Amino acid sequence: MSLLVKGGTVVGPTGTRVADVLVEGEKIVAVLDPSYTPRITVNEVIDAAGKYVIPGGIDAHTHMEMPFGGTSASDTFDTGTRAAAYGGTTTIIDFAIQRTGEVVQDGLAAWHAKTAGECHIDYAFHMILGGVDADALKAMDRLVADEGITSFKLFMAYPGVFYSDDGQILRAMQAARENGALIMMHAENGIAIDVLVQQALERGETDPIYHGITRPAALEAEATNRAIALAEVAQDCPLYIVHLSASQALAKVAEARDQGRNVFAETCPQYLYLTLEDQLGAPGFEGAKWVCSTPLRSKHESHQRDLWKGLRNNDLAIVSTDHCPFCMKDQKELGLGDFSKIPNGIGGVEHRVDLVFQGVVDGQLSLERWVETIATTPARMFGLYPRKGIVQPGSDADLVIYDPNGATRIGTATHHMNMDYSAYEGVEIKGRVGTVISRGEVIVADGNYHGRKGRGKFLERGLSSYLI
Amino acid sequence: MSLLVKGGTVVGPTGTRVADVLVEGEKIVAVLDPSYTPRITVNEVIDAAGKYVIPGGIDAHTHMEMPFGGTSASDTFDTGTRAAAYGGTTTIIDFAIQRTGEVVQDGLAAWHAKTAGECHIDYAFHMILGGVDADALKAMDRLVADEGITSFKLFMAYPGVFYSDDGQILRAMQAARENGALIMMHAENGIAIDVLVQQALERGETDPIYHGITRPAALEAEATNRAIALAEVAQDCPLYIVHLSASQALAKVAEARDQGRNVFAETCPQYLYLTLEDQLGAPGFEGAKWVCSTPLRSKHESHQRDLWKGLRNNDLAIVSTDHCPFCMKDQKELGLGDFSKIPNGIGGVEHRVDLVFQGVVDGQLSLERWVETIATTPARMFGLYPRKGIVQPGSDADLVIYDPNGATRIGTATHHMNMDYSAYEGVEIKGRVGTVISRGEVIVADGNYHGRKGRGKFLERGLSSYLI
Amino acid sequence: MSLLVKGGTVVGPTGTRVADVLVEGEKIVAVLDPSYTPRITVNEVIDAAGKYVIPGGIDAHTHMEMPFGGTSASDTFDTGTRAAAYGGTTTIIDFAIQRTGEVVQDGLAAWHAKTAGECHIDYAFHMILGGVDADALKAMDRLVADEGITSFKLFMAYPGVFYSDDGQILRAMQAARENGALIMMHAENGIAIDVLVQQALERGETDPIYHGITRPAALEAEATNRAIALAEVAQDCPLYIVHLSASQALAKVAEARDQGRNVFAETCPQYLYLTLEDQLGAPGFEGAKWVCSTPLRSKHESHQRDLWKGLRNNDLAIVSTDHCPFCMKDQKELGLGDFSKIPNGIGGVEHRVDLVFQGVVDGQLSLERWVETIATTPARMFGLYPRKGIVQPGSDADLVIYDPNGATRIGTATHHMNMDYSAYEGVEIKGRVGTVISRGEVIVADGNYHGRKGRGKFLERGLSSYLI
Amino acid sequence: MSLLVKGGTVVGPTGTRVADVLVEGEKIVAVLDPSYTPRITVNEVIDAAGKYVIPGGIDAHTHMEMPFGGTSASDTFDTGTRAAAYGGTTTIIDFAIQRTGEVVQDGLAAWHAKTAGECHIDYAFHMILGGVDADALKAMDRLVADEGITSFKLFMAYPGVFYSDDGQILRAMQAARENGALIMMHAENGIAIDVLVQQALERGETDPIYHGITRPAALEAEATNRAIALAEVAQDCPLYIVHLSASQALAKVAEARDQGRNVFAETCPQYLYLTLEDQLGAPGFEGAKWVCSTPLRSKHESHQRDLWKGLRNNDLAIVSTDHCPFCMKDQKELGLGDFSKIPNGIGGVEHRVDLVFQGVVDGQLSLERWVETIATTPARMFGLYPRKGIVQPGSDADLVIYDPNGATRIGTATHHMNMDYSAYEGVEIKGRVGTVISRGEVIVADGNYHGRKGRGKFLERGLSSYLI
Repeated sequence: MSLLVKGGTVVGPTGTRVADVLVEGEKIVAVLDPSYTPRITVNEVIDAAGKYVIPGGIDAHTHMEMPFGGTSASDTFDTGTRAAAYGGTTTIIDFAIQRTGEVVQDGLAAWHAKTAGECHIDYAFHMILGGVDADALKAMDRLVADEGITSFKLFMAYPGVFYSDDGQILRAMQAARENGALIMMHAENGIAIDVLVQQALERGETDPIYHGITRPAALEAEATNRAIALAEVAQDCPLYIVHLSASQALAKVAEARDQGRNVFAETCPQYLYLTLEDQLGAPGFEGAKWVCSTPLRSKHESHQRDLWKGLRNNDLAIVSTDHCPFCMKDQKELGLGDFSKIPNGIGGVEHRVDLVFQGVVDGQLSLERWVETIATTPARMFGLYPRKGIVQPGSDADLVIYDPNGATRIGTATHHMNMDYSAYEGVEIKGRVGTVISRGEVIVADGNYHGRKGRGKFLERGLSSYLI
Repeated sequence: MSLLVKGGTVVGPTGTRVADVLVEGEKIVAVLDPSYTPRITVNEVIDAAGKYVIPGGIDAHTHMEMPFGGTSASDTFDTGTRAAAYGGTTTIIDFAIQRTGEVVQDGLAAWHAKTAGECHIDYAFHMILGGVDADALKAMDRLVADEGITSFKLFMAYPGVFYSDDGQILRAMQAARENGALIMMHAENGIAIDVLVQQALERGETDPIYHGITRPAALEAEATNRAIALAEVAQDCPLYIVHLSASQALAKVAEARDQGRNVFAETCPQYLYLTLEDQLGAPGFEGAKWVCSTPLRSKHESHQRDLWKGLRNNDLAIVSTDHCPFCMKDQKELGLGDFSKIPNGIGGVEHRVDLVFQGVVDGQLSLERWVETIATTPARMFGLYPRKGIVQPGSDADLVIYDPNGATRIGTATHHMNMDYSAYEGVEIKGRVGTVISRGEVIVADGNYHGRKGRGKFLERGLSSYLI
Repeated sequence: MSLLVKGGTVVGPTGTRVADVLVEGEKIVAVLDPSYTPRITVNEVIDAAGKYVIPGGIDAHTHMEMPFGGTSASDTFDTGTRAAAYGGTTTIIDFAIQRTGEVVQDGLAAWHAKTAGECHIDYAFHMILGGVDADALKAMDRLVADEGITSFKLFMAYPGVFYSDDGQILRAMQAARENGALIMMHAENGIAIDVLVQQALERGETDPIYHGITRPAALEAEATNRAIALAEVAQDCPLYIVHLSASQALAKVAEARDQGRNVFAETCPQYLYLTLEDQLGAPGFEGAKWVCSTPLRSKHESHQRDLWKGLRNNDLAIVSTDHCPFCMKDQKELGLGDFSKIPNGIGGVEHRVDLVFQGVVDGQLSLERWVETIATTPARMFGLYPRKGIVQPGSDADLVIYDPNGATRIGTATHHMNMDYSAYEGVEIKGRVGTVISRGEVIVADGNYHGRKGRGKFLERGLSSYLI
Repeated sequence: MSLLVKGGTVVGPTGTRVADVLVEGEKIVAVLDPSYTPRITVNEVIDAAGKYVIPGGIDAHTHMEMPFGGTSASDTFDTGTRAAAYGGTTTIIDFAIQRTGEVVQDGLAAWHAKTAGECHIDYAFHMILGGVDADALKAMDRLVADEGITSFKLFMAYPGVFYSDDGQILRAMQAARENGALIMMHAENGIAIDVLVQQALERGETDPIYHGITRPAALEAEATNRAIALAEVAQDCPLYIVHLSASQALAKVAEARDQGRNVFAETCPQYLYLTLEDQLGAPGFEGAKWVCSTPLRSKHESHQRDLWKGLRNNDLAIVSTDHCPFCMKDQKELGLGDFSKIPNGIGGVEHRVDLVFQGVVDGQLSLERWVETIATTPARMFGLYPRKGIVQPGSDADLVIYDPNGATRIGTATHHMNMDYSAYEGVEIKGRVGTVISRGEVIVADGNYHGRKGRGKFLERGLSSYLI
């Protein structure tokens, strides 16, 4: 089976060119100058003239069907990966979870069980360590060596749930420094936040907006600084800050990077477009839709401007979604009258490629950085390169043919995620995902779905190739 | 005529892969997965197994046969570009010069005359503006629009020779902001330096080391900061600092980049390896070999460590040579007894690819950054991408097959530059330039030269595609 | 003649206490605890209960009857020092001027001539060097050694008038480093500003507000950075930035101070209260009243907030007035239709003590910092301490009895400066200058003037005692 | 009873002057110009000509007879305050302690019991909160309002002993923000340090130097940053960092101060003079003498240079001793074979005035800053001003007549502290404490002791008057 994507403008991290992309089976086997016409026979030719041809999107931060606060994220691996595919994402990296007292390998096995036969696109796992102890440290080595799990997420927030203290963090970082893994950090000072939350509730401040007010930017910046310091003590263990939302936290990352440290960060579309006042502060309980942590930040400060700047100058390396959807009905509603009981999470796995492209349209980002932040850098950062993240011979034929002249309107009427609301209801994007190809197979074309549950493969990842 | 470079490890700015590179005529027409064997006939196959295949080096800063201080740089375009080819550089960007009172276009014409029929590899020009006035500003627009000259260099040093005052700089930056050109800056406070030089000479401090001592790092940092400020006033005119050598200047660039500014910088191999004390302070007049501006910096400070760090984190985007050789005999000797009369310049166009690769060997730099700093970024920065700087279909077939297991010993006995000394005499590099291909033609192979004078073409450059 | 100021709250730089101040002749001879009642006879007792007793204000930056732009500042030493006295200032440091081509000592002699027999309060001189050359450098030494002139002001603005190039600045700083003097700097990049001014005029932008727009904060920050760098090259020559108005310039001063450098700065009341939009942008030609350099800054930026912060944390050491009044009629009017011809200057010598006290009322500043910034630090900075600037035995009996419960309304109806407008017309201050004592003599009491022309003495100053 | 200190050079925070100081009973009642000779009768005249007259030293950080690690600090309030008096310190502020589970007021009562009738000089208490809970928060209010305790110390180190988590810290800071108290912080990340300690012991690294190696500067800087962030969240609660020793921590303090925050820090003589390598790394168990936390820092880094700079530019406000002596015999020896069991503490209460004066002799500090850092600022910072810390009428007659031409040799042979070693054995100081006067009583003269146990009074302190 061969396929030729013809005449498209291939966008790569250093620039664009018109080229033909030849696919045999699951792989790209050649990239050809359009003027060159070798005698090759192909089964199918896709005309991509006037379109962008980009590597399939990699969403490095999703939480399908994740248990949280007495419920579970509303997208299963089935519904979630199918929605991702619709949106031009052909790989997700989800989080397997070890909770305190659990065996790490058991957590991993549970996630393998959940995903088996369910995914529409390729997937990999990071491992959440909710209980760093001697066994967990040994398990890290094993997962890196044998299981293709090369990144471990720790939490400075959520005491009693996922929280690690600074000693646990330091030990995990030391282990990672030895075995080559990357430490991912939810950087918020959860101990202090819990005090603010309790005080707010005692004052009767129960609306969703208080979720944001009780998680001030200063406490994200503090935790970010602390994680960077602990990584320094662990002999410059590589560190990746997840869902960075505050200017002050970005400044800490930038400072570390100026010093040549292996410190990286991602942000998410919600932080680039939505705000504390306009969304989280929506009337009544409406704001619950946008309860996520880190929280949306104030529009009266410079966060969004600074985040776009960070994406331009690579202090922010990646845009992920932190996709963790909960329906309003029965789920978000758990927090009626008490914002602290609202499940934390926003869904967006379907819209990332479009929402970041909108940054290109708005002049915030170059085409190169669009592709780099949604595909190439995630692949390099998380040990999937060159298999994923780039349009080059030898790579998996994960391709998105993107129409810059198309249009996308986001909302529940059209989205494929299992959510009864959209965080971006009514938002209009200039640009549109056209054909989506996953390992050589056209799974989305003209808005129609041709994929199927179970076709997605688990990806064993190597070590990061992005370290400096 | 077709050529297949087979089985090499192609190194690109985001990673490596084994691939075959197919060349037809002057261009790369396909990059192929080695497992894919289309029925194609080629005239020549080069086995690159076990070797790196990289885009031909681009040296964005050379001064062939440049008049300076009553003499001229000792390499002609003939000898200099031939030496460059030997060292794996297939494109240079030299500087055409307008002096005060001269017509810009006349300066350009003079450089076209000098280069006509002389170059062994492709070449382009930046334009030095030594006299910014109304005519020169108009000429900038014309050169950008019609002549393929899209970068202009100004000097904050050398009063009375190339010096522009801050008003001239501001006007040129404003013009560049309008016409899309890049301003390149020699950032040293020449007015203050001249005072220090005069005072040193008055004290009888005439040895070459005083060249360095009278150009303190603080005055490079000051000028760098000033250039950045003037560019800000010119509505964020893109700015490129040449031959950055001091930690303090790097800090200013990093600060601007943290703010999202279009500020870039290059350094040169001499600053990465040589020092004020060991070279410029060599006994007697020996230090004259290393008189260049900005000067070599003190080994007792952190400059070299910081420059490598800057190359890693992209606060330094490019390694150029500032190749401007003068022989000791009759040239450097002009400054016997008065360091200020020593022609400023070091030759190194032949050794850049090797010297930066040595950084890879030493663990200072990744393979990706090696290729990026010597080829890809220069191409993007100076409007030559995607024609140059990348191994992809459609690009010029400028390729270097580099043997990481080879060895190179630098010195006058073996170099091809027209210099009677080497700035790196006796330095041993792990790694060796093997075959060099320029627009599809093998010009160096097995240490033998197959190129010829006049085969190099003038490149009209577009605007920078590297801006953020 | 003896005088006892009884029961007042003496405010010093480290705190307040109720104490009696005993004056004999021109000096304070004792400070006494109120509980202690020695048998002393005094000629006069002033009841200061409920009032603040502070050292007489020192205005370290005035320009009485200064020639500028074809006219002269409208206050003579007679009118200006009398107005100062009314406002609680008992010492001014004015600027004697050397212009290019003039002999420094001649300039000094001219100012001695102007002041002889004219001043109502004590006065000293800084020396403006408008033409740094070998003679001027020698003159610096002489003025320090013999004339009580220990601070020299240079201009990075006003090319062709007072401007020094960076070489001249460096030489003057080197001289100051040797002879112990302080270099004062007008830090604006006048070369670049002149380009902006010319361009604005060419575009027909002639209103007063363009005076501010063509002097952007970035160019104040740049010059401030440059002055700091040149002082570093001059072996950490002490540096004092005059009339700092922009946040960005303050940041440069703070950075230098963090590094332990002898870098200091003053601001002026106009920058603390007035803005580009509200004053300089007043309708028609009205804005001319507030044309001064550095200019008033935008209210949409954080300048005023940052300046108050700088006064609190001592990154700003002093509040001076830069008193340089021009009447609207016949003077400011010179710039009708061309803002660049409006004489630069604002008058305020009479209001400084009140306007800074208003900061205390507003919670911006402590009582201690009020006294420190208007009296104690100026005395220490400029070699007048302990003779001036403190209420202690042995010091000159320069005292202000200040009523915190009084009120002051500023305006032409009440002020004593020779100005036909007030920069602060209608401003109401909580607080009021009561009795003013200069060298033991009550010169202002109950709003009545008891001083006289010619009673003020020239003060030979020592070296700064404020260096770290 | 009256006393006249005649002809000395009174040193104050803004400068020096020759003046006579008249004492009646316990207070200074007048400061007189020497030229002024009122008819007063005094019981005693002390000739201070050629000597400095300074306010009695205030050591704001001592731990007399503090229980720690199974033993107690070897100086009792009797021996410790007597030694302090010998060294020119006339006030100490010691730490009363609440341990987890204890009632705050009981802790305070215990310290009142320990000190009753014991002290030779005046004393006050900070309160250590080892268990912040609702009762403790209420107790803070009471201690501020009723007990003259206006500063509370928390520990980010010593988990299980004094440690507060970030939630407790935040709550205490919020309480302090309300009641006006100052939070003092031991800023080291004790949770991470305990991991490093355990790992070191597991590797058999048991020598005293590992005490320092396991407490890296990065973890002091981290905790300092965290404390500053928490104070920001607590609405800019005033914060005072104790025993700051690392450049990186100082940088955090400086950054906060640049932002106008009420953040202050002290350092101690041991950090200014002693190092990790030379003292803590002394052969065998010798290094135990210098085991204290924060630890001595490496001489190969810039800590001491930066600390002196911080004292000059007021990023470090105070020099305290953290006097907490343990004898080698029976006390330090508890840690033979396990550095973590060595009682933490160094004694130095007797030498602070001399050791900081040595900075004046060495050109590190001005006379003004000497007095300010050892007396005036401690008084202002901790609510003792103007009763203490300044030589002015109305203040307590705590005076030290200091001979700048004397000499002091430190060592066990001469010191009066109850220690069987000296941290500064053999150090020679230029300068010598002469007469020491405490509340009008000469307690040390000519090296002889005239004071007595029990004469020292407890000082109820007010709120800090040092806030900005």
